[in-house]
Amino acid sequence: MSKTQPRTLPGFMELLPGEQILFNQMMDKIRNSYERFGFLPIDTPVIESSEVLLAKAGGETEKQIYSFTKGDSELTLRFDLTVPLAKYVAQRYNELTFPFRRYQIGKVYRGERAQRGRFREFYQCDIDVVGDGELSLVNDAEIPAIIYKTFKDMGLNDFTVYINNRKILNGLFEYVGANNHAIETMRIIDKIEKIGEDGVRAELKDLSLADESIQYIINFIRINTGGLPEQTINALKNLKIENELFRQGVEELSEVIKYIRLFDVPEEYFAIDLSIARGLDYYTGTVYETFLNNYKNIGSICSGGRYNDLAEYYTERKLPGVGISIGLTRLFFVLNDMKLIKSEQKSISKVLVVSMVDDLSKSIEIANKLRDAGINTEIYSDADKKIKAKFKYADKLSIPYVVIIGEDEIKSDKYTVKNMETGEQEMMEIGEVVRILK
Amino acid sequence: MSKTQPRTLPGFMELLPGEQILFNQMMDKIRNSYERFGFLPIDTPVIESSEVLLAKAGGETEKQIYSFTKGDSELTLRFDLTVPLAKYVAQRYNELTFPFRRYQIGKVYRGERAQRGRFREFYQCDIDVVGDGELSLVNDAEIPAIIYKTFKDMGLNDFTVYINNRKILNGLFEYVGANNHAIETMRIIDKIEKIGEDGVRAELKDLSLADESIQYIINFIRINTGGLPEQTINALKNLKIENELFRQGVEELSEVIKYIRLFDVPEEYFAIDLSIARGLDYYTGTVYETFLNNYKNIGSICSGGRYNDLAEYYTERKLPGVGISIGLTRLFFVLNDMKLIKSEQKSISKVLVVSMVDDLSKSIEIANKLRDAGINTEIYSDADKKIKAKFKYADKLSIPYVVIIGEDEIKSDKYTVKNMETGEQEMMEIGEVVRILK
Repeated sequence: MSKTQPRTLPGFMELLPGEQILFNQMMDKIRNSYERFGFLPIDTPVIESSEVLLAKAGGETEKQIYSFTKGDSELTLRFDLTVPLAKYVAQRYNELTFPFRRYQIGKVYRGERAQRGRFREFYQCDIDVVGDGELSLVNDAEIPAIIYKTFKDMGLNDFTVYINNRKILNGLFEYVGANNHAIETMRIIDKIEKIGEDGVRAELKDLSLADESIQYIINFIRINTGGLPEQTINALKNLKIENELFRQGVEELSEVIKYIRLFDVPEEYFAIDLSIARGLDYYTGTVYETFLNNYKNIGSICSGGRYNDLAEYYTERKLPGVGISIGLTRLFFVLNDMKLIKSEQKSISKVLVVSMVDDLSKSIEIANKLRDAGINTEIYSDADKKIKAKFKYADKLSIPYVVIIGEDEIKSDKYTVKNMETGEQEMMEIGEVVRILK
Repeated sequence: MSKTQPRTLPGFMELLPGEQILFNQMMDKIRNSYERFGFLPIDTPVIESSEVLLAKAGGETEKQIYSFTKGDSELTLRFDLTVPLAKYVAQRYNELTFPFRRYQIGKVYRGERAQRGRFREFYQCDIDVVGDGELSLVNDAEIPAIIYKTFKDMGLNDFTVYINNRKILNGLFEYVGANNHAIETMRIIDKIEKIGEDGVRAELKDLSLADESIQYIINFIRINTGGLPEQTINALKNLKIENELFRQGVEELSEVIKYIRLFDVPEEYFAIDLSIARGLDYYTGTVYETFLNNYKNIGSICSGGRYNDLAEYYTERKLPGVGISIGLTRLFFVLNDMKLIKSEQKSISKVLVVSMVDDLSKSIEIANKLRDAGINTEIYSDADKKIKAKFKYADKLSIPYVVIIGEDEIKSDKYTVKNMETGEQEMMEIGEVVRILK
């Protein structure tokens, strides 16, 4: 029979079991952290009607999006978890309790140009708090606390949550007469880390902004970068920019900073950065980006912000919210690639039961007892394989313990436990085996 | 602005948070049970190249399958987790350790005709043990033990794992001269619960089987239904069917039954049923189906079997295996529909912190302490809402405890804990609050 070459599509992550264990541990930590803060799980479909998913885009499909026809239906694979949330909340408004705190962890799809470290299928781990008509600013301050706790739980240490407020930028743009190009201007200044001051200057010039305004904006977003948040707030106040939106933004940012401290986020883990704008046009207030201090070049590992209106394409109701997203697939890839994480566990089992006799009855009996005690256990089932092969299996999977069942063991009702790391082994009663391995 | 109607496609399950909590608990139990038996996680893409996924079908796409073109690529959404496993093992053969015990829990896609309780997107929870060239029969006996433990963990009680062996049926077909239509014959007898004896007789007649053979087959598959496994084995031996395959099948079944007992599966949870054949043509030995005793009409809730050759479309290597699949989405739907499960928890939070004062500082401080102690906690963030609204929120989400922070509490550094179920409340120090809620 002619064979088909087994292959996985480029841009799709598929891990070996050892890496998958580590990936799942990271995902579990995110989930546990989100649950610690009382977020509720939802799980929306991967496939939605194109009309619904692309409501914002006016039904126009972009190249990046996976859309197709099935029977009479125009279907699209979700490209984020925010649009499905908007749909969900608009559709089930009457059945939900607000503020609605939800998390969702799932795969999303984007037909990105295939290149190393870019994925077409990737996990997003999102939280959002959605209010009914209004939502307290305390939620904006809790988000950095959630980011902090989540990444700490994942074992990361050198990271900073950068915070800004879009009202400050929009107020500034009004003040310098750049408000006709607010969104484009934000997109440009958001890239300052990547394209530098000259790049920003050139691109702003293309928008026909006055040189003077451009210089003002560039000076502005550099205010007190890396300094204490209160210094930045004071510097902003001292600018005496007379603009209501600006004033509101500074006040909100100041309030958010005050509460972040109350949420016990240590000083070195958050900072104001006035160049943070986020490309997406639906943010209206607080915005966040999170960087690994020593690897800023890999980009933000957790971003989000406050929006006025989650579901305006589906409902007249005003549903303000604030949320963030962790792109877990890419984060895992870069941490793994830079050897900042390492899969040490190649097995789920804590114990391999190895029989020295052909009859596996006793091995099964012992495995039952270990499993009943909650210990992840497997039995090496090919009784007729050589003993060397059985231990090699435990070695290759780095299973920490082997319980050996031989004639002596069966006769004495004591079983040999071998610590595969130290090589030490000892015979003991089953109760003792369970106690040690638990 | 004109609004798009928010809707979810028919055949796609989307739950409210309370139901989602229950769904996730069931999935966690399955995962924990699979891990208890030492299975390793993998996570293959939802999208694969059509050529790879449809290798068996010769690239021909069926109506049920979601296939589409993106750029130059012919893509297909996975319709099960077995074909992706075959691809994975063939592709990564050199990096895996055999026997390879893997589990995968993920969504699969089939364009089924939309009807109540039929899903186009659904979770499969699969385990397989794949050997390199050979695989001990002990694994065939461990599978019913895994089914038993998993469903027990999920809180199910009245179920039976039905076991058969395809070699017995194939041997029988050779013996009665029905072996030219073995696969069709299996498909037909597999439906006996659904279409009855007369239905089976009529369909077998359409295959031009002799009346005598048909009668023999029908009598055969009814042997000792519901009786003790050993009685069935003896009855099979007493038939004196002289056929090597038949003899092998009976021997394997007998061996599997012997080991199942050793794996501590209670007598009432397993049985031989000679009509179990499984529609899929790749099974070659042991086959399983699992029924809820009082709801056999909903069909098998966990099925699987032994196959000679997992990945023959991708590799020359012989990779025999045995595995099962739980269709969790449908299982959840029917259990929920029949009120055999009930979502009692509407919240992830154990505690809601409610402030009676405008300043949330103390509430945040208390929430930090509860969260640090591992207690899922949320803060009611709209400090200016009426107290009634705050308690209503806790009520609607059935959050079990509310911690009240008022002026008295702040002054005395003691906090009121209210048990929302009993209505009892008491003031205590924070250490005591943590102790009680933990």
